[in-house]
Amino acid sequence: MIIVMKPGATKAQFNHIIQKVKEFGFQPHPIVGTERTVIGCIGDERGKEQLLALDSAEGVETVMPILKPFKLASKEMKKERSVVTIHGDLSIGGKRFVVMAGPCSVETRAQIVKSAEIVKAAGAQMLRGGAFKPRTSPYSFQGLEEEGLKLLAEAREKVGLPFVTEVITPTDVHLVAQYADMLQIGARNMQNFALLKEVGKLKKPVLLKRGMSSTLNELLMSAEYIMSQGNYSVVLCERGIRTFEDYTRNTCDLSAVPALKEMSHLPVIVDPSHGTGVRSLIPPVSKAAVAVGADGLIIEVHPHPEEAFSDGAQSLLPNQFEKLMSDVKRYLPLEGRVL
Amino acid sequence: MIIVMKPGATKAQFNHIIQKVKEFGFQPHPIVGTERTVIGCIGDERGKEQLLALDSAEGVETVMPILKPFKLASKEMKKERSVVTIHGDLSIGGKRFVVMAGPCSVETRAQIVKSAEIVKAAGAQMLRGGAFKPRTSPYSFQGLEEEGLKLLAEAREKVGLPFVTEVITPTDVHLVAQYADMLQIGARNMQNFALLKEVGKLKKPVLLKRGMSSTLNELLMSAEYIMSQGNYSVVLCERGIRTFEDYTRNTCDLSAVPALKEMSHLPVIVDPSHGTGVRSLIPPVSKAAVAVGADGLIIEVHPHPEEAFSDGAQSLLPNQFEKLMSDVKRYLPLEGRVL
Amino acid sequence: MIIVMKPGATKAQFNHIIQKVKEFGFQPHPIVGTERTVIGCIGDERGKEQLLALDSAEGVETVMPILKPFKLASKEMKKERSVVTIHGDLSIGGKRFVVMAGPCSVETRAQIVKSAEIVKAAGAQMLRGGAFKPRTSPYSFQGLEEEGLKLLAEAREKVGLPFVTEVITPTDVHLVAQYADMLQIGARNMQNFALLKEVGKLKKPVLLKRGMSSTLNELLMSAEYIMSQGNYSVVLCERGIRTFEDYTRNTCDLSAVPALKEMSHLPVIVDPSHGTGVRSLIPPVSKAAVAVGADGLIIEVHPHPEEAFSDGAQSLLPNQFEKLMSDVKRYLPLEGRVL
Amino acid sequence: MIIVMKPGATKAQFNHIIQKVKEFGFQPHPIVGTERTVIGCIGDERGKEQLLALDSAEGVETVMPILKPFKLASKEMKKERSVVTIHGDLSIGGKRFVVMAGPCSVETRAQIVKSAEIVKAAGAQMLRGGAFKPRTSPYSFQGLEEEGLKLLAEAREKVGLPFVTEVITPTDVHLVAQYADMLQIGARNMQNFALLKEVGKLKKPVLLKRGMSSTLNELLMSAEYIMSQGNYSVVLCERGIRTFEDYTRNTCDLSAVPALKEMSHLPVIVDPSHGTGVRSLIPPVSKAAVAVGADGLIIEVHPHPEEAFSDGAQSLLPNQFEKLMSDVKRYLPLEGRVL
Repeated sequence: MIIVMKPGATKAQFNHIIQKVKEFGFQPHPIVGTERTVIGCIGDERGKEQLLALDSAEGVETVMPILKPFKLASKEMKKERSVVTIHGDLSIGGKRFVVMAGPCSVETRAQIVKSAEIVKAAGAQMLRGGAFKPRTSPYSFQGLEEEGLKLLAEAREKVGLPFVTEVITPTDVHLVAQYADMLQIGARNMQNFALLKEVGKLKKPVLLKRGMSSTLNELLMSAEYIMSQGNYSVVLCERGIRTFEDYTRNTCDLSAVPALKEMSHLPVIVDPSHGTGVRSLIPPVSKAAVAVGADGLIIEVHPHPEEAFSDGAQSLLPNQFEKLMSDVKRYLPLEGRVL
Repeated sequence: MIIVMKPGATKAQFNHIIQKVKEFGFQPHPIVGTERTVIGCIGDERGKEQLLALDSAEGVETVMPILKPFKLASKEMKKERSVVTIHGDLSIGGKRFVVMAGPCSVETRAQIVKSAEIVKAAGAQMLRGGAFKPRTSPYSFQGLEEEGLKLLAEAREKVGLPFVTEVITPTDVHLVAQYADMLQIGARNMQNFALLKEVGKLKKPVLLKRGMSSTLNELLMSAEYIMSQGNYSVVLCERGIRTFEDYTRNTCDLSAVPALKEMSHLPVIVDPSHGTGVRSLIPPVSKAAVAVGADGLIIEVHPHPEEAFSDGAQSLLPNQFEKLMSDVKRYLPLEGRVL
Repeated sequence: MIIVMKPGATKAQFNHIIQKVKEFGFQPHPIVGTERTVIGCIGDERGKEQLLALDSAEGVETVMPILKPFKLASKEMKKERSVVTIHGDLSIGGKRFVVMAGPCSVETRAQIVKSAEIVKAAGAQMLRGGAFKPRTSPYSFQGLEEEGLKLLAEAREKVGLPFVTEVITPTDVHLVAQYADMLQIGARNMQNFALLKEVGKLKKPVLLKRGMSSTLNELLMSAEYIMSQGNYSVVLCERGIRTFEDYTRNTCDLSAVPALKEMSHLPVIVDPSHGTGVRSLIPPVSKAAVAVGADGLIIEVHPHPEEAFSDGAQSLLPNQFEKLMSDVKRYLPLEGRVL
Repeated sequence: MIIVMKPGATKAQFNHIIQKVKEFGFQPHPIVGTERTVIGCIGDERGKEQLLALDSAEGVETVMPILKPFKLASKEMKKERSVVTIHGDLSIGGKRFVVMAGPCSVETRAQIVKSAEIVKAAGAQMLRGGAFKPRTSPYSFQGLEEEGLKLLAEAREKVGLPFVTEVITPTDVHLVAQYADMLQIGARNMQNFALLKEVGKLKKPVLLKRGMSSTLNELLMSAEYIMSQGNYSVVLCERGIRTFEDYTRNTCDLSAVPALKEMSHLPVIVDPSHGTGVRSLIPPVSKAAVAVGADGLIIEVHPHPEEAFSDGAQSLLPNQFEKLMSDVKRYLPLEGRVL
């Protein structure tokens, strides 16, 4: 932590800060410059928010942290890349590039089974589908809830694909975990800390989506929440951030993938469906996700998008998904990956 | 809803859309222009998301909704402004301008009682203080939880100020409601729909903060969630949005106050502490909040900000809050308000 | 400047940085922490961009500047607030609150004279009107150019209001300066450095608008460009920034006013017309501008907005402007200001 | 254009709008819905800004344009993709993927010649280098100006690469055009309309960079400015937009590439150097640019980044560029492209 004193800071103010720094357990190291005096504070600053409060002390211009605030999720803690096992030989973060696909919502048995068949035939290794839906309108379809989980499990049985599904509140975590192979924390819940703690107590893998206005630091802090409870099986997901651009629903931040890999050892996948919100942009962004080093994709596919209960406009038609997968397959060898 | 066909759309594509519009229960009304054909769809479009999915049909360029998606929160539903009663003669949205103040977190009995005394002496009508804290770091102080609620209740008893406090997960709603006079939904939980539904079942007033990257439409949709469960006592709160500017922690969107009042009948207050994140900017923004027609303020005040467990750098010192209140009092008569 | 070394930086890398810092004329001051080594660099870092390039040297994690990059515009350089004289006893930044008003574009003699009469009658002290218009479409009205300047001068003659008008390219600066009392640099030209240098050579006051995605630091750097050429008569203008919110055209960042006053000695005014882009929001934001300490306003007013060549939807009707001015007059005494 | 009337609009207000629509040369077509009356306006709305001003008429809720505001740049005007010839057999937008590379600024003869040799050896087909530099600080190096152009021409002579260089003000356009093979309009000048018009009068190709907070619509409107003057040789460039994320300098919006190709026939290239501002992220983003269908790249490379006068921290070292080019070459065949 570096504390920068204001130009006219008095000796008394300076001494007060030095004393506070010591009280908080740090070793102060002042440097008197030509225009500013700065105080280097030696010690582990993480979780030591009180030091930041010195920002408000008389004579202080600013307080600048040096260390990233996350530990378990950081590359300093663990140099080799993490591999998160879904089940058997299916894992995320290794050589295999993992594609999760399926409809936004589970609607009917026929729809989810059909979806599973379609995405499996095209090469997806996991099924996605929402049973608990975080909808912006209370009047919109809210999901089939436990019934949806059962249908997902049936589809898994029939088609042989493990599935990921979203959990939206702590009390549902154990219910969802009974059925799902992987639990998704959606963008709107990235900082639902009670929910993060609850999935942190599981032994199941968690797919953590970046909040729509979250920095990468904040995404990793949310991963840290889950990991700090003992669950290290976290996969990060870039799904687009909110900007002023309105041709797309969100701006898919593809450079976030290599950036997250510089900051953390956790696997990173991309959601081009929400990342763009525009059907025609999903295939090129999917190929680009391979190129930036993503460990997988999660994509919305629906047998009949026009009739989808939700997200129809950004769901791929079966033949579009098939084409996308054949493109992705051509790209994988360039990054040394296999499906 | 207006459906715009693509320039080269075929007759078959056009007929398909006309048929779909009818299937969804709307009456289509085509207009053939010089460069585009558009189809006006007559009927109540709210909650009818399937119509939006036509965006993805062949030959469709775009689908444009006409109506706002919220009903109960809208001015069309209720022309007169809502007044939310806290208790006795204290209500928000009427002639009184209501100031809620206190520390970010409840830390100790002495701290919260002292805070209550300070803010009451300066003119605040409600105490604020966090017992359940949504902290970005799992290693930061997470709040005293139920113990904090008890201390808040003690402070209320002793000092005579009702209090507002945040609830962060559905299972805590009833516990918090036993103690608090008003429940706060924080910015990070603005789209925690399970939580919104749960506070919607209460008869207690709810303070709903705008998410840091939420549009006003989305804020009102979140209010709609609460109201759709039967709880109409919702107060909206502008608390700053996330932009590229970094001198401030957030950009306080003061024009949101009159904008929300054009869109909705619900009361609106401003949180200049989070809205700016910079102590020195809180007093001017507080005065401006009066000027734009806010119904109140929520402000962080701490007896000793340098020692605060959280948000010290943006907490006002007691004498700063006193000065702010005396400024606010000078402004209120210009808007026909009283404390 | 603080240089933070990476955790595993080698001794050779460290020595290389120390040597470079010395080569660039700074005095290095290393602090060895528990998790990082940082190097404080003593010396004036402004304009020394090469030091920043060390960011890319082997073993360096990050380089953090300590000083703001502007000098002449800073409060360190000049503690008392600047007052910019327009002419005679009309100046901006002192006790008087200066309102500039008029149409977006000069359209006809009758229109601009009528506008001048209307805004003067309501209390405005300056006329605004565009002769050179930076329009997003090449097919839109581009302004009357020199003819517009002549009409503005006629209106000044007739009505007795000095005027401000925009200049959009360096070659027009001297032409515009022949007519105008104050030259405006529009948001889109805030970083048109050739233009900034050119108005910097004048002795006329300059109204510098914040770019729509510019930080306050960048705005002040643009002021610095003008001042570095010798023209110290710069007035800053907050005119809304671009965010994701779409109810308004821009988000008017009112906290920028007191923030700029903390950073700089230059006067600051607010443009609520572009700041919100919504006619009904202009009056409340104008009052709020007084409350946050602005030194004036610039507002679009048109005798017949429905027929305006540009910006009709955000132009006030004459009676709306009259009402706004009477509201502003009630607010001014609270901030110790007069018209 | 669709005009939506307010719920309580009177018959007189409705009639007034109908009459205005006719006056402006459009044919009104009202649809009376259950909750709103909307008026479809038939006619070419582009450049007819007065219709938008009806937004402010009594009884009108909103005015929604149907058509995109650009014509010459649109796919409706020209269905086949444009190919912009640089010289001889080098053109952008066809089968060849064109890489422009070189230092941020031209510094010395040795530096620019060396840079040209390095980038040519690695496979780049064009040299980039700034002679006129738009720097945020007036105290930073502003470029060698005409001397820089001469050095670029010498490097071209010696090494055999055509070059692109930025022009920052209309009066320099003809000077720059005497030397350069392609003129660049930088992000800060994307809406410098006087400059756009001036390069529009040339017969030389123009590289138009997206403004850092510009929508794709606005970028295409700026292309339209150039094209409306007769110069159709415009290449668009995505170079990152400004968001709240601070790990990167900008957020590179890669989905903008396929989006622009849906909207326009113009070629599109990507600038990953400014797009990310982080050296290590440039290679992955470059590969992704191929995958999303970009027609080329523009990249900063410097023989000695640590000593660069500008942008050192985001300039690639020669061997890093060589590696990047060999990666790009592996990707090109997948998109049917060649260098």
